[in-house]
Amino acid sequence: MARARASQDIHQTAEQVRAGDRRALARAITLVESARPSDRPRAEDLLNLLLPDTGRAIRIGISGAPGVGKSTFIEAFGAYVTGEGHRLAVLAIDPSSRRSGGSILGDKTRMESLARNPGAFIRPSPAGTTLGGVARRTREAMLVTEAAGFDVVLVETVGVGQSETAVADMVDVFVLLISPGGGDELQGIKRGVMELADIVIVTKADGVLKEAAVRAAADYAHALHMMRPKYSGSAPQVLQVSSVEGRGLAEAWSAIQSLRETFVSSGELSTLRATQLRRWFWSEVHEALLEEVQSSTAARSEAERLEAAAGSGEALPSAAAREFLARFRGS
Amino acid sequence: MARARASQDIHQTAEQVRAGDRRALARAITLVESARPSDRPRAEDLLNLLLPDTGRAIRIGISGAPGVGKSTFIEAFGAYVTGEGHRLAVLAIDPSSRRSGGSILGDKTRMESLARNPGAFIRPSPAGTTLGGVARRTREAMLVTEAAGFDVVLVETVGVGQSETAVADMVDVFVLLISPGGGDELQGIKRGVMELADIVIVTKADGVLKEAAVRAAADYAHALHMMRPKYSGSAPQVLQVSSVEGRGLAEAWSAIQSLRETFVSSGELSTLRATQLRRWFWSEVHEALLEEVQSSTAARSEAERLEAAAGSGEALPSAAAREFLARFRGS
Repeated sequence: MARARASQDIHQTAEQVRAGDRRALARAITLVESARPSDRPRAEDLLNLLLPDTGRAIRIGISGAPGVGKSTFIEAFGAYVTGEGHRLAVLAIDPSSRRSGGSILGDKTRMESLARNPGAFIRPSPAGTTLGGVARRTREAMLVTEAAGFDVVLVETVGVGQSETAVADMVDVFVLLISPGGGDELQGIKRGVMELADIVIVTKADGVLKEAAVRAAADYAHALHMMRPKYSGSAPQVLQVSSVEGRGLAEAWSAIQSLRETFVSSGELSTLRATQLRRWFWSEVHEALLEEVQSSTAARSEAERLEAAAGSGEALPSAAAREFLARFRGS
Repeated sequence: MARARASQDIHQTAEQVRAGDRRALARAITLVESARPSDRPRAEDLLNLLLPDTGRAIRIGISGAPGVGKSTFIEAFGAYVTGEGHRLAVLAIDPSSRRSGGSILGDKTRMESLARNPGAFIRPSPAGTTLGGVARRTREAMLVTEAAGFDVVLVETVGVGQSETAVADMVDVFVLLISPGGGDELQGIKRGVMELADIVIVTKADGVLKEAAVRAAADYAHALHMMRPKYSGSAPQVLQVSSVEGRGLAEAWSAIQSLRETFVSSGELSTLRATQLRRWFWSEVHEALLEEVQSSTAARSEAERLEAAAGSGEALPSAAAREFLARFRGS
């Protein structure tokens, strides 16, 4: 009986999400992000109901080192894209947000005008214990926003740990923001991140930095030329944008759109998305198994002890792993 | 009694390995690489006995696209390094080698003179079902060769799948070989691989390609300048080598050595190795859990069905993963 009521409830929420009800959308994402195992069946019921209405959005990943002007860019880009009649959802991946217990106010404050824009929806990063945990919730939140009719989804990463790889693995087009300015500053880009980029955007291409932006764009175009693009036959483009003056936004949006259109017609997008879904399946299996192992306090402290022994060279990592799993089974 | 004999046996093998007995070394690696679960305890006994004598070698990873001249380089480099009085072990990571059931003859044929060199030891890639499986065996084979007194270990990857990342995660210095020649050819480097490189070597810097090699070296130096190096304060060097004429080999060896010496004195090497060991521990836990899941035929075919359903968008990956694990528990 309780189950039947829950199910009706979920049907109603799904209806409201599809109708574009923003409060239902927020509620649905909260359910999907819930860390309580008892919420999972309802969350999956909801997602299964919404699944047929997902997959049609342009999924864009966006990353850049602190100070690159990410919030300012997203505000300006969001204003442009919604001005073109699109509906934009902004999601964030930030495994560190658990420290502050989420950052709803923070995100809304730093993108003040976008937060008030009726064509946009901003959702901060879920609080999650692991990157895998955060990433899988963001993947699901993306599906919910798609079912709610948002046709452009922007997944932003703050660049902690492996979060760029996680974002690149759930979007169609990955955009890397770069500051103008030479030498040492350029090296602030984390290893492996540049090669994820489908499009590079040099920010702050205005005022005193205008010339530096031109040079940085040429440098990055040269460097990117030597990497194999994610999609065949399309070397990553490098663009310049001034978020403050609003210049380059139309070009950025058109580059993203035309890149994606090429992937759609070549069939590469559907191949990519199928691969992403398969990897998601296996990472869910992996996460669930590790969660099970780590859910016991005893197992967790044992893991820490053996991990330290492996790290110091006292124990062979493979033997330590076998010992750990044997104790876990035994307990 | 059988166990006591095995143990004595293992002690003897460990002795022989430490004394540099090549047949014992080959036998020890075969034991370590054995896929039979019943061999695992003896393999780990052996590795535990050898552990105190490991860790002193210079561990070098080496990668490059097919056609770059990897075997020719390793032959020439190996002749130079052993000529300097070092003892060199060459190991390979090639998850695809299971298809041919290993490639002992193949590897020895393609590095004919090095195979006859008494200061060198060549071991082909172990046959393994997964990259994780191959990588952990190669990590252990590396420990065995170190205990046998090889002070330079070269781990070669053929560049299948994520094998470069696996190799980079077990070595001190990662070397990327590059062909001279511009444009399209340059793009043959897999995404993410360039940023793993601590040192880039342009091969075939002789004859008609000599000038092209100079240009390629300048191009890559420029591109690498924009990436953050693995170790602080050391932008990756780009060198040119002619394996045929023997030019640049001394410079390559000295660059690798001095890079590593810097890491040793800064303390970065011990930090890196401790991190590698900790990650190894967790990847062993992960591999063991997945192996358990996949060891049942029923579970494996169920996984394939659900993975396909997730990939086609019929099923939500997280729900499919939960269903899979529930059935696995039930069976």
